[in-house]
Amino acid sequence: MKNIVLTIEYDGTNYHGWQKQNNSLGIQDVIGNALYKVTGENINLIGSSRTDAGVHALFQVANFYTNTQIPVERLPFAINSILPKDIVIVDAFEANQEFHSRYSAKKKRYKYIIYNRRFPMPIKRNYSWHISKELEIEKMIYASKYLIGTHDFSSFKASGSEIKNNIRTIYEILIQKQEDEIILEIEADGFLYNMVRIITGTLVYVGLGKINAEEILNILESKDRTKAGITAPPQGLYLLKIYY
Amino acid sequence: MKNIVLTIEYDGTNYHGWQKQNNSLGIQDVIGNALYKVTGENINLIGSSRTDAGVHALFQVANFYTNTQIPVERLPFAINSILPKDIVIVDAFEANQEFHSRYSAKKKRYKYIIYNRRFPMPIKRNYSWHISKELEIEKMIYASKYLIGTHDFSSFKASGSEIKNNIRTIYEILIQKQEDEIILEIEADGFLYNMVRIITGTLVYVGLGKINAEEILNILESKDRTKAGITAPPQGLYLLKIYY
Repeated sequence: MKNIVLTIEYDGTNYHGWQKQNNSLGIQDVIGNALYKVTGENINLIGSSRTDAGVHALFQVANFYTNTQIPVERLPFAINSILPKDIVIVDAFEANQEFHSRYSAKKKRYKYIIYNRRFPMPIKRNYSWHISKELEIEKMIYASKYLIGTHDFSSFKASGSEIKNNIRTIYEILIQKQEDEIILEIEADGFLYNMVRIITGTLVYVGLGKINAEEILNILESKDRTKAGITAPPQGLYLLKIYY
Repeated sequence: MKNIVLTIEYDGTNYHGWQKQNNSLGIQDVIGNALYKVTGENINLIGSSRTDAGVHALFQVANFYTNTQIPVERLPFAINSILPKDIVIVDAFEANQEFHSRYSAKKKRYKYIIYNRRFPMPIKRNYSWHISKELEIEKMIYASKYLIGTHDFSSFKASGSEIKNNIRTIYEILIQKQEDEIILEIEADGFLYNMVRIITGTLVYVGLGKINAEEILNILESKDRTKAGITAPPQGLYLLKIYY
């Protein structure tokens, strides 16, 4: 069997995330159904990251095993012709048998977009987090430096998550202002559940003056989720890149 | 009575344009209904431009006469609390009695966004025109120069329009590439029906090599709509600025 890798973009607005929840459709199933129509096989599609409801992907990676005779370079066109317009396959290639989109991932990069002006922007309502009070971006950048490196990120993990090893390494946090947008990019060897959104919510609290930048160290050391800021809403989050 | 001016942003995706069509809701009516709830008055809301279904506004201007006692600076908050999230009032101020959002306008500026890469981008599907073949932007810029100035733009007007004076003055056409986006901005003293979208479609034909840049002069002189390119789809168009 061939091990086919897809790179995928999607608008998460109308889905309950990568995986289905109860009876609601997941993006994984929508692509799986399209793959069934294209290959005639029941496909087990393995995604690199389980994005939540409302979260977008500019670069999701998923792989599957198939006996299809369709040339791999034709697959994006064949699958896209069946998919709804908010999910697009942008690339397909054959990998070695061992490649696993999740376990083989070395690094991941996410982006978070904040819209910072008095009134929300209609065309960005599903693609950013609107904050009307002006954020002090310099403080946010300063605070973000405390998160770089290898730490126990228990304070930045949604409660209820069952993962036991909470140590991750953040390689970079980039915070830039472009007109009314504040764009955060975070790269790490992996992320705990809701980690990017809790980091974003905490840095926003720093930008609003609700938390001192130096306080980040204490929050990290406390290993207590309640010490960090709120969880930023999903619609500002974008899966940006997976490195293998 | 006070003459109140609103500046408005909206996402045109879910509406049949500024004005209602048959039984479908227009953005004008949605705001009018909100104004009724806020003021208790039946408001005649006058918009600067009748944007089509799917077209967005980053700066629409509308005015209305009212006896309301609500302070004008509170109006955006009061109206926004009733409006759906895809329409936002960003400013309100009192003008002199003569101000008319349409007739007082001196210049208008529109933006058009083209997404130019192999596959469409899901999060931009309602906010741009996807073109998969690579556009030669230098040719488009060259061709656009022929349109600058005062001309009879009959060739760039949707058929069926009843306006008789087809002479308009284009002050500027700016065409820029930002990563996969090609952004056109056009400023004129006024626009004929569908003029921005027909100009965009024609320049895209130039970028695709279907029309020679020099041909634009002949198209203008022909005063024949069928000589120009296609009408670009509405979702890439943004009302950007009205000058008074």
